[in-house]
Amino acid sequence: MTQHYSSALLERAVDEFAKLPGIGHKTAVRLVLHLLRQDAAAVEAFAGSVARLRREVKFCRVCHNISDTDTCEICSDPRRERNTICVVEDIRDVMAIENTQQYRGLYHVLGGVISPMDGIGPGDLTIDSLLERVTRDTEVREVILALSPTVEGDTTNFYLYRRLAPTGVRVSVIARGIAQNDELQYADEVTLGRSIVNRTPFKEEN
Amino acid sequence: MTQHYSSALLERAVDEFAKLPGIGHKTAVRLVLHLLRQDAAAVEAFAGSVARLRREVKFCRVCHNISDTDTCEICSDPRRERNTICVVEDIRDVMAIENTQQYRGLYHVLGGVISPMDGIGPGDLTIDSLLERVTRDTEVREVILALSPTVEGDTTNFYLYRRLAPTGVRVSVIARGIAQNDELQYADEVTLGRSIVNRTPFKEEN
Repeated sequence: MTQHYSSALLERAVDEFAKLPGIGHKTAVRLVLHLLRQDAAAVEAFAGSVARLRREVKFCRVCHNISDTDTCEICSDPRRERNTICVVEDIRDVMAIENTQQYRGLYHVLGGVISPMDGIGPGDLTIDSLLERVTRDTEVREVILALSPTVEGDTTNFYLYRRLAPTGVRVSVIARGIAQNDELQYADEVTLGRSIVNRTPFKEEN
Repeated sequence: MTQHYSSALLERAVDEFAKLPGIGHKTAVRLVLHLLRQDAAAVEAFAGSVARLRREVKFCRVCHNISDTDTCEICSDPRRERNTICVVEDIRDVMAIENTQQYRGLYHVLGGVISPMDGIGPGDLTIDSLLERVTRDTEVREVILALSPTVEGDTTNFYLYRRLAPTGVRVSVIARGIAQNDELQYADEVTLGRSIVNRTPFKEEN
């Protein structure tokens, strides 16, 4: 559909918004018109925050998490347990795990998972950096693989395990099973089957 | 939920996106991380288009449509029929009607509808400007009211009709009825009832 715009500036802004994933044309128009109704300072703050983020943001040189400094605040926090590294696919996973407040160790952001279909091989991820970290830092006792339970995640887990095994570090994977409040009858067969095979002793506090 | 961010720049950008209507926190994170993966020029183009729009955009001094110039391209187009003004609520309606390619007259953008519940009275809309236009421009023969078929739209239609009647201009409203491809059984009673009362003679080309 060709769309009529009475303003080239409007058209350009709508086109830019419509490039964002999951934002269709109608939504883009709605968002842009919303911004137009805001005062100038608010719109400058919006545009400025985006431009500045892209320009100034860094990635931690230790764990590759997004950071405002060369070493991220998790890696440089003396209260974190330095003997455990949790390997995740991207920085959203760091945020999700931090929100659980159940983990006090360090992270390593892979930047993806091995996916031959998408042309992503081990060399495209921060795997060498992880190996180097585990080898150099003798404090590290355990690497927790916290990747998505997909074919690509499992492939990557397997590859990482093979690479990490010679270092003597303990390698674990996050537990899989029925999610809290899920209804058993709607769980997929693989998950349900594994949850029975990998059952755990009953504990009263569970 | 307090959210952990390892970067204040990231947090600020996510917060700005999450202010947009219909954009929740998770979507905001997804959009910002998408922008982070784009090259710097693309992100500058995105941010720049938004800032520039807000800074430079104008509203047509005749019809109040969004415009890059003092008088919009519709108002200054000599091929448009100057004897008809179509009154709409906002600029999205202009875009929607232009896309139908069924209308060749001019527009007048009210900037909303009368809504006492939201504290919007006639003085908050461009009604005086419309009256002034109709009074001054003796070419104008008809004003088409193309507002939403809501209580507020009907209230505004009635108010506009009362104000316009003394000028002698013809006032019409867009047709209401069953939408193309709508199933009759799902139409609301008011629409269906009115569509029978306001039936039109059968025409073969319909």
